[in-house]
Amino acid sequence: MEKVPSELDKLRHTAVHVMTHAIKELYPEALPTLGPPIENGFYNDYFNLPIKEEDLGKIEEKMKEIVKRNLSLVRIETSKKEAQQLFIHNRFKLELIKDLKDGEITIYQQGDFIDLCRGGHLDSTSEVKHFKLMKLAGSYWRGDAKNPMLTRIYGTAFFSKQELDSYLQMLVEAEKRNHMVLGKRLQLFEMHEESPGAPFFYPKGTIIYLELMKFLREQYANRGYKEVITPLLYDKSLWETSGHWEHYQQNMFVLNVDNREFGFKSMNCPSHCLMFRNLVNSYRDLPLRLADFAALHRNELKGTLAGLTRVRKFSQDDAHNFIAEEDLQNELLKVIDFVDFVYKKTFNVEVEIKLSTRPEKRLGSDDHWDKAEAALEMALKEKKLDFTIDAGEGAFYGPKIDIFMKDSLKRLHQLATIQVDFQMPLRFNLQFDGADGKKHTPIMIHRAILGSLERFIGVLTEHFEGKFPLWLSPIQVIVMSLSDKNIAYAQKVAVALSQAGLRVETDISGETIAKKVRNAQLQNINYMITVGDKEEQASSLAIRTLDGKVKFGVPISDFVAELVEKMRSRSLA
Amino acid sequence: MEKVPSELDKLRHTAVHVMTHAIKELYPEALPTLGPPIENGFYNDYFNLPIKEEDLGKIEEKMKEIVKRNLSLVRIETSKKEAQQLFIHNRFKLELIKDLKDGEITIYQQGDFIDLCRGGHLDSTSEVKHFKLMKLAGSYWRGDAKNPMLTRIYGTAFFSKQELDSYLQMLVEAEKRNHMVLGKRLQLFEMHEESPGAPFFYPKGTIIYLELMKFLREQYANRGYKEVITPLLYDKSLWETSGHWEHYQQNMFVLNVDNREFGFKSMNCPSHCLMFRNLVNSYRDLPLRLADFAALHRNELKGTLAGLTRVRKFSQDDAHNFIAEEDLQNELLKVIDFVDFVYKKTFNVEVEIKLSTRPEKRLGSDDHWDKAEAALEMALKEKKLDFTIDAGEGAFYGPKIDIFMKDSLKRLHQLATIQVDFQMPLRFNLQFDGADGKKHTPIMIHRAILGSLERFIGVLTEHFEGKFPLWLSPIQVIVMSLSDKNIAYAQKVAVALSQAGLRVETDISGETIAKKVRNAQLQNINYMITVGDKEEQASSLAIRTLDGKVKFGVPISDFVAELVEKMRSRSLA
Repeated sequence: MEKVPSELDKLRHTAVHVMTHAIKELYPEALPTLGPPIENGFYNDYFNLPIKEEDLGKIEEKMKEIVKRNLSLVRIETSKKEAQQLFIHNRFKLELIKDLKDGEITIYQQGDFIDLCRGGHLDSTSEVKHFKLMKLAGSYWRGDAKNPMLTRIYGTAFFSKQELDSYLQMLVEAEKRNHMVLGKRLQLFEMHEESPGAPFFYPKGTIIYLELMKFLREQYANRGYKEVITPLLYDKSLWETSGHWEHYQQNMFVLNVDNREFGFKSMNCPSHCLMFRNLVNSYRDLPLRLADFAALHRNELKGTLAGLTRVRKFSQDDAHNFIAEEDLQNELLKVIDFVDFVYKKTFNVEVEIKLSTRPEKRLGSDDHWDKAEAALEMALKEKKLDFTIDAGEGAFYGPKIDIFMKDSLKRLHQLATIQVDFQMPLRFNLQFDGADGKKHTPIMIHRAILGSLERFIGVLTEHFEGKFPLWLSPIQVIVMSLSDKNIAYAQKVAVALSQAGLRVETDISGETIAKKVRNAQLQNINYMITVGDKEEQASSLAIRTLDGKVKFGVPISDFVAELVEKMRSRSLA
Repeated sequence: MEKVPSELDKLRHTAVHVMTHAIKELYPEALPTLGPPIENGFYNDYFNLPIKEEDLGKIEEKMKEIVKRNLSLVRIETSKKEAQQLFIHNRFKLELIKDLKDGEITIYQQGDFIDLCRGGHLDSTSEVKHFKLMKLAGSYWRGDAKNPMLTRIYGTAFFSKQELDSYLQMLVEAEKRNHMVLGKRLQLFEMHEESPGAPFFYPKGTIIYLELMKFLREQYANRGYKEVITPLLYDKSLWETSGHWEHYQQNMFVLNVDNREFGFKSMNCPSHCLMFRNLVNSYRDLPLRLADFAALHRNELKGTLAGLTRVRKFSQDDAHNFIAEEDLQNELLKVIDFVDFVYKKTFNVEVEIKLSTRPEKRLGSDDHWDKAEAALEMALKEKKLDFTIDAGEGAFYGPKIDIFMKDSLKRLHQLATIQVDFQMPLRFNLQFDGADGKKHTPIMIHRAILGSLERFIGVLTEHFEGKFPLWLSPIQVIVMSLSDKNIAYAQKVAVALSQAGLRVETDISGETIAKKVRNAQLQNINYMITVGDKEEQASSLAIRTLDGKVKFGVPISDFVAELVEKMRSRSLA
């Protein structure tokens, strides 16, 4: 089922035609291939277009000319044979035409420029008023590295100058917050060519990672989750049982061991199904909520890897909740409460929620789907949460809720997921003795609250612009001596804070306090403590926060108590 | 350099000849191949010997006959040609003879039985008085699965009946403590055929695993270690730089990604060398101690896999300490103190320490070796630790200390290791600016205190016979109601204990207290709390420990305080 294009999609699709028209006039030897409107703009791929970033301005100028020409986009139906004649010099279009049938081939013409196209445009080039070409990238014909390399041009277009400007401004703001730039500058995490798509978390980034895990483990203890540690490498037979071998093999790292095929795990569910068999006999053993931070590997195309957001190796705050059917809604309420606790109560961010319902191709009885969809919907309603329904977009095994976090730049990030699954327990033949003395099959809820920890840390880094709240901050306090006389006191203070479990550094160098403060600010340290003679005599501290608030004469014990409480409550202030 | 065989080795070597002699008389069609004395006995491999465990008794009887015959073992020097004649019917021996030279071939004869052998026996079969055949196993000629399969017979022999009996008694004791049997019964961990050599830690086993990690992390914070999180899959080029590709490739899981060869990491050192480059500029950034719990994979032969002690997937409490050369001894003192803290102060076990010095084939200058060996030796002496020197047994890159834990059955387990490495920093071209303004290469200490966490948990399980001290115990307290009237109070007590951070279960079933206690004992729960009317009225508890001590009328707060303190101090009592 194709989606009806939005007006914005049509605008951007029209912009693609304008861009390609401009390129044909500037670089007649270039061969346009394909390109769609995308989330924040559009792109198109070209063969034989050896340009550089600085050429984009020239193309934009030519595009403005074409916009001014006010050319109508005219739809022309054509036969396969005629289309082949028209695109005889473009082997990529010919390849596309080969797969099309007579009666379904259309071309669009604007002035003397034509392109093979299914349509979905605005009426005239003159409507493409507010656009910008963003960047170049390399790509391959049909995304396959064995095919010829193409030049991809990304651009964007909006209906008003204001929208375009605010989008570009957001990009500037986002670039300042780019988590890979911040990750490197703050020594949090980095990528190395030796392991594409697998982040290295340096000591400071690891602190954030482990603080998130500690936070989740506290919640697991409170909410009846039990953590397990599982292998990463499994025989093909397990993936055949789970269905991943059929549906997901191309994303798995597969290798030969003992003359058998093995796959590195991309998901935890099959491991937990194996464990269910040994942990559950009767309904009294349910619900069983197995949590797992195992490293997962997915063989994403190298060209698609991006920072912490699209990786090959990551861990999820993953859990599988095995329940009796009658507990489904109750369990979903608990999971939604967990999501709510993390996003609203802990991180104080807004979320958008999407409920995806039964797709056309699906497994399982309508009765099951009715129950599962109703349970998800009622749970969201009971929690008074707004949500939209994405009809037909559920997984083939069951409906799901996706939760999007809205960050401080109002960008949405798909993070948490709650999926109801009837199928995998059946495939693994999982059973338990019910109170009625009969055998029952459990339902399995796949859920992740933060999602991928790697991705979540990337999102948080941008959300906080690298200025993490106290509990996540790699260095929480720095104690700076005003002069050499105060070094011993500075160290004493640091020890006292450290013993209270705080992450403390000292700066007892001979630099000026102004320089020390600047250095500390560059590292986004939450509290900068200055100790001079006055503080030493009064056993007190002069405190400056990262956002510039200053307090003098604070007793050490008061400061420790304040910070310990902020840590405990995971305060954002 | 060959080791001089001990008298016990000679006895067991003689026992091998007696066993093979017996087999030749009982099963003339069997072809003996090879078999050495080993740590606790001996084994020998035979081709074409299709026997079962129950046949071992018959072989033992025949061996006793041969012992009684009091046959001298006579050494006969022979030529290659003659040897080939003598063993014409045994293609395995012929293969061995092919690699030997005239003048170095000897055979040993006892009665009418001969075997190709380099010697190292006692003088007569009559000295093999106290022996036992233990078990059968499958093996391959020269350990290669492509070669013919052989039958391996394991046995043991001692000089006195008392030693043999006490060894067999120890085995009975050890079998009761077998960690895989206990692991399954207590639902701690288990293996599944879907992932050979990779343990599954169930929720209760994961508690032990995570408590050990928490313990180590506390020590890391106190001792200046910084934890990192690293990728598992690396391009071949990294392993070439580190030397693993050349020396260790056959133990690595290797696969093809993006048309490049990648290997799953078997060791953390190369990842930490990459990080050093981005974390260290000058001597002020040293020492850098990077700790890493990353999952490691080693492709051990499937036939050699055993429980948690020989696995394919595991994590070490691994760290690499990068230091300036002048800090070597000081840093070694700190590492030895860490080992001492863990084994003696925390687990209260004895250790044996072995210092392995420069091998004949080695890298690096004698000056470096002198310094490194002296630093290790002086550090051990300064800490007043006994140790033996294993001359020539160091790694090719540097000397090392191995620490063996003596468990409650007096068995030794090689666990901790401290290795001094000059080579890898050179291979990775690691440098820092010294205080003298010049570039220096750091020294790297590879160290693990528990070693593999999997193996350590296996050893601990047997050491404690599955009765873990409070801080490691999966279920610490069970609260049992005396009658249905006391259920609410039981639950209140459980909540209070749980809020204090204790791992608590309740048994509020209708069973008798005797039955409830038995169930709790089977699970090795440290404290069994009974609450009846008397306790409810006094807000107190009746407490029974796993070792049978009973206390009545204990106020809840006293009990909580006692247990919290035991947890904090990681008490073994």
